[in-house]
Amino acid sequence: MKTVSENRAFGGVQGVYAHASAATGGEMTFGLFLPEGAEDGPVPLVWFLSGLTCTHENAMVKSNAQRWAAEAGVGVVFPDTSPRGQGVADDAAYDLGQGAGFYVNATQAPWAPHFRMWDYVTEELPRLLFSAFPLAEEAQAITGHSMGGHGALTIAMSFPGRFKSVSAFAPICHPTAGDWGRKQFAAYLGRDESAWAAHDSTLLMRKRGFDGPMLIDQGTSDQFLDHLKPEALAEAMAARRQGGTLRMQKGYDHSYFFVSTFMEDHIGFHAKALYG
Amino acid sequence: MKTVSENRAFGGVQGVYAHASAATGGEMTFGLFLPEGAEDGPVPLVWFLSGLTCTHENAMVKSNAQRWAAEAGVGVVFPDTSPRGQGVADDAAYDLGQGAGFYVNATQAPWAPHFRMWDYVTEELPRLLFSAFPLAEEAQAITGHSMGGHGALTIAMSFPGRFKSVSAFAPICHPTAGDWGRKQFAAYLGRDESAWAAHDSTLLMRKRGFDGPMLIDQGTSDQFLDHLKPEALAEAMAARRQGGTLRMQKGYDHSYFFVSTFMEDHIGFHAKALYG
Repeated sequence: MKTVSENRAFGGVQGVYAHASAATGGEMTFGLFLPEGAEDGPVPLVWFLSGLTCTHENAMVKSNAQRWAAEAGVGVVFPDTSPRGQGVADDAAYDLGQGAGFYVNATQAPWAPHFRMWDYVTEELPRLLFSAFPLAEEAQAITGHSMGGHGALTIAMSFPGRFKSVSAFAPICHPTAGDWGRKQFAAYLGRDESAWAAHDSTLLMRKRGFDGPMLIDQGTSDQFLDHLKPEALAEAMAARRQGGTLRMQKGYDHSYFFVSTFMEDHIGFHAKALYG
Repeated sequence: MKTVSENRAFGGVQGVYAHASAATGGEMTFGLFLPEGAEDGPVPLVWFLSGLTCTHENAMVKSNAQRWAAEAGVGVVFPDTSPRGQGVADDAAYDLGQGAGFYVNATQAPWAPHFRMWDYVTEELPRLLFSAFPLAEEAQAITGHSMGGHGALTIAMSFPGRFKSVSAFAPICHPTAGDWGRKQFAAYLGRDESAWAAHDSTLLMRKRGFDGPMLIDQGTSDQFLDHLKPEALAEAMAARRQGGTLRMQKGYDHSYFFVSTFMEDHIGFHAKALYG
């Protein structure tokens, strides 16, 4: 693992690191904020999974998560959204290929060799983080934006007990039924839709739910509401009697201005679960 | 004037607007955050002037000023750092030409026709802002980063009574004596150094100072410390008995992580002067 950059921020350190990844068969880059308290011992970790077109950098520089993570004494990791580089398949569309990994393990050509973001985010990167940094493996929470909200919700529900809390900003809630999902799942996972269900938050909510607090924010002026389908997840949460809060935020869109506005609430929400 | 974008943020609106500029002879773009209270009447205005290579966008998306401006009930304007576009002179270096206006009126070829950022920021843009938006002309403060810190300090000292308070993040403090200044002033203002003095904070501090509170933050690990020369301004402030605070922030560099870390303090500092 090599250090790309380290900047002091809010009394802690905002680092960017790169490493050879067995899961994706190439070099992966991630951002990690460690609060001042990490100098004295392991701190809890909040995962922030990013959305379409993003790298590790967007939320790291735009969300201001560090301000609230420093106050709460938690670390935040910002993984990339796909494998990248020479020899990695791509597509001209912004919503397929590089920058659009959808947090799945691709089984289809040409994606299968590198697009294994599920394994990367749920196995390889955790192993690296907990061995190389002062982070407490028993104190994890997860959140994300848009495609990353989809990742956070599906991963949280798939690893019971791993995450104390889950939240999401404008997540893709029902990808097997929408334009942000059907195309990508067909490309990455194949035409057999039975393989898709493990990566759909609404279907996972119907089947198993999440054993812990859940917070979802969605802007009412989001230009992608038709793709996100919060109504499907809302219905599934209510039907299941899942504990959790879904907030429809009047006038907010899909941008990082929306994310940064509510980041304080999300980090505070996770800190309460992690320290509570 | 045309609206480029408007996003709800922190209960207010983050807008981006473009307009024909007589001062710079082309189209100029700026960002303006208005807090929720602007719906009910004029609010105070904090100017944020940006540094080398920046547009109106960098601080707008990275500094998280909106969070604190919303809380304080003040607007924040993010002007561009130079004229741009076809027919506007430029230079291959990052620190001259487009993105590097240095907040002066150029008198030399090829810069003179468009590089009139002093007039733009001190005359034309204020006139536009106070006529088009609910902003209180009698309640202004000014800040900036690096080259923009230089702009904030020189403008504040040049218009006594206009700004209630001034602050800066890692400002270029003594450009007539450093690599960020001598080259640009020679290009924009000519070889006669007597024309440079009006744009040097250290020289202005020696001559007249600022009638109000002043706050300057400077990282001790700033990679550009040799160009910034905070020691010259510190000496001039102390010699003049200028009221103000200069904070050397241990371990911080020149990045927006430094700016965003201390933005809360700066907006709070200005809000106190504006409402106090």
